[in-house]
Amino acid sequence: MSEDRKEERFESEHKPEHRERLADHVVFIGNKPFMNYVTGVVMQFTTQGADEVVVKARGRFASRAIDVVEVARKRFLEGQIDLAQNGIEIGSEEFQNKEGRNIRVSFIEIKLIRKT
Amino acid sequence: MSEDRKEERFESEHKPEHRERLADHVVFIGNKPFMNYVTGVVMQFTTQGADEVVVKARGRFASRAIDVVEVARKRFLEGQIDLAQNGIEIGSEEFQNKEGRNIRVSFIEIKLIRKT
Repeated sequence: MSEDRKEERFESEHKPEHRERLADHVVFIGNKPFMNYVTGVVMQFTTQGADEVVVKARGRFASRAIDVVEVARKRFLEGQIDLAQNGIEIGSEEFQNKEGRNIRVSFIEIKLIRKT
Repeated sequence: MSEDRKEERFESEHKPEHRERLADHVVFIGNKPFMNYVTGVVMQFTTQGADEVVVKARGRFASRAIDVVEVARKRFLEGQIDLAQNGIEIGSEEFQNKEGRNIRVSFIEIKLIRKT
């Protein structure tokens, strides 16, 4: 069997439906163009049929995550999605950087749900 | 107008002194040194005797608000304060700038409570 075939088989065996569903419907905010992320959220609800989408960000991208959520729910999917009840989480993780200094990085997770 | 100028103008127009004083136990995050805000939160709980403090921010300062909350509750007041249940709110306001363009500014409000 060629390497390619082996990898194909590996993937199909190790990427069962349930894992895909878990990993799906998360939009992680970074420094790509803003509208990429808005489109990402909108597509999850429209073409991907998600009932729930979680927008996640770390550090300074938290502000951007909020902007993405607001543009998605107030402009593109107005009346169709909403913030989940108790659906906003913040927190932080502390770790050591290369110089051995303790660094704290905050995160935010915002859960959007399809309106019923 | 740069993003900074926009936010500065927005702040000076929408954050009059008297409003700040009326809303007790509110810490509004801007671009002063980071520790000013952490100290602000800590002092509300310690010397001001607050049982509840709300940290508010607009636009890009939302990330900073989360950082302030995390440093206050994980380092300075560890074990003494916590996030309120369902205590995080996000939203946005749309308004017209001088050029007549519609601008949307997001906000975040994070409620901290004294642990009992």
